Amino acid sequence: MRTLIKNGTVVTASDTTKTDVLIDGEKIAAIGSGLATGTDQVIDAENRYVMPGAIDVHTHMELPFGGTFASDDFATGTAAAAWGGTTTIVDFAVQSYGQTLRQGLDQWHKKAQGKAHIDYGFHMIVREINDSILKEMDALVNEGIPSFKLFMAYPGVFMLDDAAIFRAMSRTAENGGLIMMHAENGGAIDVLVKRYLAEGKGDPINHGLTRPASMEGEATGRAIALARLFAETCPQYLYLSLDDLGRPGFEGAKYVCSPPLRPPSHHDELWKGLLQDDLQLVATDHCPFHFKGQKDLGRGDFSKIPNGLPGVEDRFSLIFHGGVNSGRITLNRFVELVATAPAKMFGLFPRKGTIAPGSDADIVIFNPRVERTLSAKTHHMNVDYSCYEGMTVKGLPEVVMQRGNVLVREGKFQGVKGAGQFLRRSPFHGVPASEPSPVGARS
Amino acid sequence: MRTLIKNGTVVTASDTTKTDVLIDGEKIAAIGSGLATGTDQVIDAENRYVMPGAIDVHTHMELPFGGTFASDDFATGTAAAAWGGTTTIVDFAVQSYGQTLRQGLDQWHKKAQGKAHIDYGFHMIVREINDSILKEMDALVNEGIPSFKLFMAYPGVFMLDDAAIFRAMSRTAENGGLIMMHAENGGAIDVLVKRYLAEGKGDPINHGLTRPASMEGEATGRAIALARLFAETCPQYLYLSLDDLGRPGFEGAKYVCSPPLRPPSHHDELWKGLLQDDLQLVATDHCPFHFKGQKDLGRGDFSKIPNGLPGVEDRFSLIFHGGVNSGRITLNRFVELVATAPAKMFGLFPRKGTIAPGSDADIVIFNPRVERTLSAKTHHMNVDYSCYEGMTVKGLPEVVMQRGNVLVREGKFQGVKGAGQFLRRSPFHGVPASEPSPVGARS
Amino acid sequence: MRTLIKNGTVVTASDTTKTDVLIDGEKIAAIGSGLATGTDQVIDAENRYVMPGAIDVHTHMELPFGGTFASDDFATGTAAAAWGGTTTIVDFAVQSYGQTLRQGLDQWHKKAQGKAHIDYGFHMIVREINDSILKEMDALVNEGIPSFKLFMAYPGVFMLDDAAIFRAMSRTAENGGLIMMHAENGGAIDVLVKRYLAEGKGDPINHGLTRPASMEGEATGRAIALARLFAETCPQYLYLSLDDLGRPGFEGAKYVCSPPLRPPSHHDELWKGLLQDDLQLVATDHCPFHFKGQKDLGRGDFSKIPNGLPGVEDRFSLIFHGGVNSGRITLNRFVELVATAPAKMFGLFPRKGTIAPGSDADIVIFNPRVERTLSAKTHHMNVDYSCYEGMTVKGLPEVVMQRGNVLVREGKFQGVKGAGQFLRRSPFHGVPASEPSPVGARS
Amino acid sequence: MRTLIKNGTVVTASDTTKTDVLIDGEKIAAIGSGLATGTDQVIDAENRYVMPGAIDVHTHMELPFGGTFASDDFATGTAAAAWGGTTTIVDFAVQSYGQTLRQGLDQWHKKAQGKAHIDYGFHMIVREINDSILKEMDALVNEGIPSFKLFMAYPGVFMLDDAAIFRAMSRTAENGGLIMMHAENGGAIDVLVKRYLAEGKGDPINHGLTRPASMEGEATGRAIALARLFAETCPQYLYLSLDDLGRPGFEGAKYVCSPPLRPPSHHDELWKGLLQDDLQLVATDHCPFHFKGQKDLGRGDFSKIPNGLPGVEDRFSLIFHGGVNSGRITLNRFVELVATAPAKMFGLFPRKGTIAPGSDADIVIFNPRVERTLSAKTHHMNVDYSCYEGMTVKGLPEVVMQRGNVLVREGKFQGVKGAGQFLRRSPFHGVPASEPSPVGARS
Repeated sequence: MRTLIKNGTVVTASDTTKTDVLIDGEKIAAIGSGLATGTDQVIDAENRYVMPGAIDVHTHMELPFGGTFASDDFATGTAAAAWGGTTTIVDFAVQSYGQTLRQGLDQWHKKAQGKAHIDYGFHMIVREINDSILKEMDALVNEGIPSFKLFMAYPGVFMLDDAAIFRAMSRTAENGGLIMMHAENGGAIDVLVKRYLAEGKGDPINHGLTRPASMEGEATGRAIALARLFAETCPQYLYLSLDDLGRPGFEGAKYVCSPPLRPPSHHDELWKGLLQDDLQLVATDHCPFHFKGQKDLGRGDFSKIPNGLPGVEDRFSLIFHGGVNSGRITLNRFVELVATAPAKMFGLFPRKGTIAPGSDADIVIFNPRVERTLSAKTHHMNVDYSCYEGMTVKGLPEVVMQRGNVLVREGKFQGVKGAGQFLRRSPFHGVPASEPSPVGARS
Repeated sequence: MRTLIKNGTVVTASDTTKTDVLIDGEKIAAIGSGLATGTDQVIDAENRYVMPGAIDVHTHMELPFGGTFASDDFATGTAAAAWGGTTTIVDFAVQSYGQTLRQGLDQWHKKAQGKAHIDYGFHMIVREINDSILKEMDALVNEGIPSFKLFMAYPGVFMLDDAAIFRAMSRTAENGGLIMMHAENGGAIDVLVKRYLAEGKGDPINHGLTRPASMEGEATGRAIALARLFAETCPQYLYLSLDDLGRPGFEGAKYVCSPPLRPPSHHDELWKGLLQDDLQLVATDHCPFHFKGQKDLGRGDFSKIPNGLPGVEDRFSLIFHGGVNSGRITLNRFVELVATAPAKMFGLFPRKGTIAPGSDADIVIFNPRVERTLSAKTHHMNVDYSCYEGMTVKGLPEVVMQRGNVLVREGKFQGVKGAGQFLRRSPFHGVPASEPSPVGARS
Repeated sequence: MRTLIKNGTVVTASDTTKTDVLIDGEKIAAIGSGLATGTDQVIDAENRYVMPGAIDVHTHMELPFGGTFASDDFATGTAAAAWGGTTTIVDFAVQSYGQTLRQGLDQWHKKAQGKAHIDYGFHMIVREINDSILKEMDALVNEGIPSFKLFMAYPGVFMLDDAAIFRAMSRTAENGGLIMMHAENGGAIDVLVKRYLAEGKGDPINHGLTRPASMEGEATGRAIALARLFAETCPQYLYLSLDDLGRPGFEGAKYVCSPPLRPPSHHDELWKGLLQDDLQLVATDHCPFHFKGQKDLGRGDFSKIPNGLPGVEDRFSLIFHGGVNSGRITLNRFVELVATAPAKMFGLFPRKGTIAPGSDADIVIFNPRVERTLSAKTHHMNVDYSCYEGMTVKGLPEVVMQRGNVLVREGKFQGVKGAGQFLRRSPFHGVPASEPSPVGARS
Repeated sequence: MRTLIKNGTVVTASDTTKTDVLIDGEKIAAIGSGLATGTDQVIDAENRYVMPGAIDVHTHMELPFGGTFASDDFATGTAAAAWGGTTTIVDFAVQSYGQTLRQGLDQWHKKAQGKAHIDYGFHMIVREINDSILKEMDALVNEGIPSFKLFMAYPGVFMLDDAAIFRAMSRTAENGGLIMMHAENGGAIDVLVKRYLAEGKGDPINHGLTRPASMEGEATGRAIALARLFAETCPQYLYLSLDDLGRPGFEGAKYVCSPPLRPPSHHDELWKGLLQDDLQLVATDHCPFHFKGQKDLGRGDFSKIPNGLPGVEDRFSLIFHGGVNSGRITLNRFVELVATAPAKMFGLFPRKGTIAPGSDADIVIFNPRVERTLSAKTHHMNVDYSCYEGMTVKGLPEVVMQRGNVLVREGKFQGVKGAGQFLRRSPFHGVPASEPSPVGARS
């Protein structure tokens, strides 16, 4: 099967070229003019951008949280991702207390297999550190799970102390793994949460007030003292704010996530960070919970509201709209942030993350002129509200392909449940070996 | 009993005046000329500085550590202090695990009573935080123990986690207490110590190498994120360095203290900090152990060397010599660093720390022209070595008085064992109440 | 003539003592109790603070500016100063183009002699640098004019280029002089001023908008690159803001000074700077112009409004009110900022700036409980408006003495025109000689 | 004419792909496999990198300096550039005092035309700013000279004051021009130079000592206060140091350039800057002078040594060697630094600076395994010494093509004098328009 995408504007992290792309089977074969010899299918991309399929390296499909589960599973969540131009996710497998890493990983393999519409990989959330778990980390790096998430928050649930964190960091410095950090000072936050609840402050806004930016700054500084840090951000931190968390009634619960939303003045600083590469990539932390039946577990006690927002479908368009349309970042930087940098950081490049001969034909044909309104009525994620309800964005992923197969075209979903493949990722090597051991954190 | 100190140069934190001082009983009555009416005793201080008796707010007399005790008790240690121009100490009472703060405090009262030659107060080392201990903290503030030492290092011995630290800080913000912090990241250091010992690195120098400056910086930054910090330094950090810790054989053990000595390049930065008030005072962390019989418990395993150095006798002369004689700080700043600032910070001012009518007549008559050599052979501390053996300093506390009584004069000790009084200190008020809750740390 | 001030609370930069002060002739003789032998006059200061007379090191009496003169001369201005608790000023003599420094200095000696009610010294404003002027600088240091003001702003009027500034700095590093800097980037500001006027923006607010904080920051950074900087601030920068400059109509003209007033958010930062000694002293930059007949020269063209505000009378009370009453700084720090630090920095200590035996008996007896309203109707400066009109402050300098003579008492002025003496000041020595060459700047 | 480069590893700023490149006429037609239909020439690049021809945006061919001229003209200099893998230069046209910009530009067009072997563009050095020159700047932007070099150093020769600089910056913010800045404080440096010469310090090392890093830092900070800055560095700042400037005898003269070489400790910081994009590109500041007959004009008076070093031939190999071979930067970052970023910054992209369909076929086939020794005996620049004499580097530009024509192959030069074309460059648009006006500076 040979497909020719004609007359589009091909955009990579470096180049923007009006030319054609020839796909042979699952791979890109050539880029250039005069390639049209013996193709089975031609897609006209005149006046459209031809971009690498986006990669979301921070999702939580079907995550258990506070007695309930994130409302998207691997079937609904990956279909929504495809609708939004994302063709690869890296989700978080979770170790259970007293269990091995492998037991947790196996569980996530089961959740994904036969369900995923798009390709996927796993990070591993590590909740305990001891000698045998450190050995398991070596093994996981070797079988394509080279990244581990640790928490400096949530005492009694996820939080590790500095000694454990430092041991894990030291180990990945040797085995090629990458540590990802949830950086908030959980000890101090816990004291504040108890104090607030004791004072009868139960509304959602208190979720933000008990997790002040200084506590995130402290933990980030502590992690940096132990190792070098990269940083991601997510659309919600660029568009939403503490004002949303403070919406009247219980409406604010829709916006409860951790680290929490900050004052609107942070938005410009974060965009600037994306421009200047202080922030290296954009993911979503997609972790949806229905407003009715899930978020409302925390009425009157904000600490019981499941933490998480939907986002896997909207990231591509939101970052294009707020970044490229508004002149904040270039087209090439956009592609780098949503596809190339995630692929390089997390061992998927050059198979994923670019348009180049030999790479997987994961391609988004994007029409930058279509205006549309974001809404829970039209989105494809399995959640009963949208954080961006009523917001107008310009730009639509019209055609989405994975490994040469069309997933979305002309408003129709053509993907196949279970067609998504598990991706064995390479050890971390995006930065020269002489650099200090790198660690990822979210800002 | 009325004493007139004539013709000296009276130095306070602000003024330098050639004039007379009249003492009536235990108090200073007047400063000026023409005061000589009906005095019982005249001391001629021509060509000498008349300064407030110095205050050492960081000593550990008879401290239990690793199965042994600091070699100075309240009798020998306070006599040595007086020899060196220090007329007040604030020592650290220690809570035992599972015991109340009061039990620990009572023990220290017993150690001091009937033994001390000079006045003394106590800080309280807190090893556990819970509701009842927080209440005890309120009580201690009210009875003149308004400062509490917490540790971010020594896991399993002294270390508190961030939640406990934050609770203690919050409490003192309300009750007028002051938190003092030992700021090193004990978790990460512990991992390093174990790794070094496993690799057969047991020499004293490894004490320094396993406690890198970045771990002290991290912990200090963490404490600052939780509250405002003041900072002290000690003579050993201004004079000694990692090079001493690395002396051949087991000699380096003499220099084991925590935080450890740093490279010599730190000296200038610390002196600059003293000049510019980034460091607010100088204490000693006096905690002596004999080289033979105590320090040598750690031959081949640096982690077993008792941590601590002698210093209570030499501070006054060392800071005068390295600070005033070398032109780094002014005379007035010297008095501020060794007497006035400690008194103000720790609730002893204006009773102690200055020469003013109504203040205690704690006075040092200092001869700035006498040259002498520091040595274990001539010092009065109960310890078999000097960190400054053979070093020549210029300047001698010739006469030392407390509350109008002479302790040291013409090379003779005239103090009385047990004459030192316990000082009830005032709650922290050295800085306006609108400031964030202040915390002291050592650099 | 011997005066006893009884029962007051004597405040110096270091101490606060309830005691008596004995004055013999022009000097303080003693401080303490039991001093009352053979006095000619007793002043009861019960419930009052007894403080050193304040020193204002930044005034411009009778300064020529834009075709007019500052409205206070040495007679009216120094009387107003005394009313406000200030007993010493250091005014700025100005070199005229093409003239020697001495010619400028002689002019200012003439302006002051026979007129001043209080003691005074001079700084020298230097408008040209060449070999012969550098030699004159040496001479002036030797005759008690050891400080020189240079400008990085006002091209064609005062501005010197970097080469000239660097030569002057290098010279004072050798001769004991102190450089004071007006730090604003005059070149860039001038471009902005012309552009604004060309665009028809003539209102007073544009004075501030054409002198952005970044241009002051740049120039300050440039000066720091050349030498070490001390910093002063003035009451107007602590109380007034850009909002005042933007008052409707031409009212904003009352608030035109340079550097201009900044947004209100700067106030807290400046107070913090005063607390932490990042700012070392408070002066006034007193340079008054009548609103009618002087300020209104610039109606429709802000660049023609004479730059300057009245302030010499109100500084003491404003800083006491905003600093001590509000809990931002201590009593001792207040005395340091308005009297001791200026005296030490500018070669007047210990003759001025403290209360100590041997010092000049320049004393303010301050009643901290009197409430009063600042107003042009009641102030004594020769200017037709007050920047603080209608503002209520708590605290009044009830008695003001200079060298033992009463200037103000019980609401009556008892000073004598011409009684103020010229003060030969010492070369700069407030900081150890090993420090880099220091320079003063205003923030 | 169609050329196929087969089996090479094609490297762009983003991608590294083992594939083929098809060239049709002067342009790249396609990248991929299966392209070999009807080609006239095949070049086998197995085991070689196929990279965009490098761009040197900072050269000074035939520059007049201190009575002499840079020893490379456009013929010798561009041939040497081609030998070294550089296929485009942007040289500096110079305005003469009292002349228009155009007169200066015309002179440089004459110097280049008929001589250049490779394509070239011009920046314009501006020595005066007034209304008519600002208008000329608009015109030059429109005819493809959209970048202007200003100097904060060399008073009386190139130096502009802050007002002039600020006017030029403001103009380019409107007309799409880019300001490039030589950032050293010329005023202070001039004072130091005179002082050093007066003290008899004439050796080359004094060139460095009179231009301290603090003066470059100050000027850079000043420029940043006026506008945003990008930054370039050059190989000499990464490899050479103040130690070279201090070589015995007059040898140091070979290393005289401005800003001067710094201590070796700067090297690592600069490499780190290149890795983290604090420095955006690498150029050469190629400005060679013969040691005999030119550099020796300054024997005994360092200020008369012509400022400048040769480098246009060696940049590609030096940065590859010190950057890629040593593991400091990735292959893609290397291409970005020497080709893509310069092209984007200076309006040549996508015509130059990448390998993409439609781009000029400016290509370097680089053999990373060849070891060779740099030497004046073998280099092609017209200068009698090499700064890197005897240094071994690994990697050789084996084939160098411009617009499809081979310039260098198998150690033979096949270029044609005069074949290089003048490049009209686009206005600055590499960064979104909402950014502050950008300015380039050298570090």
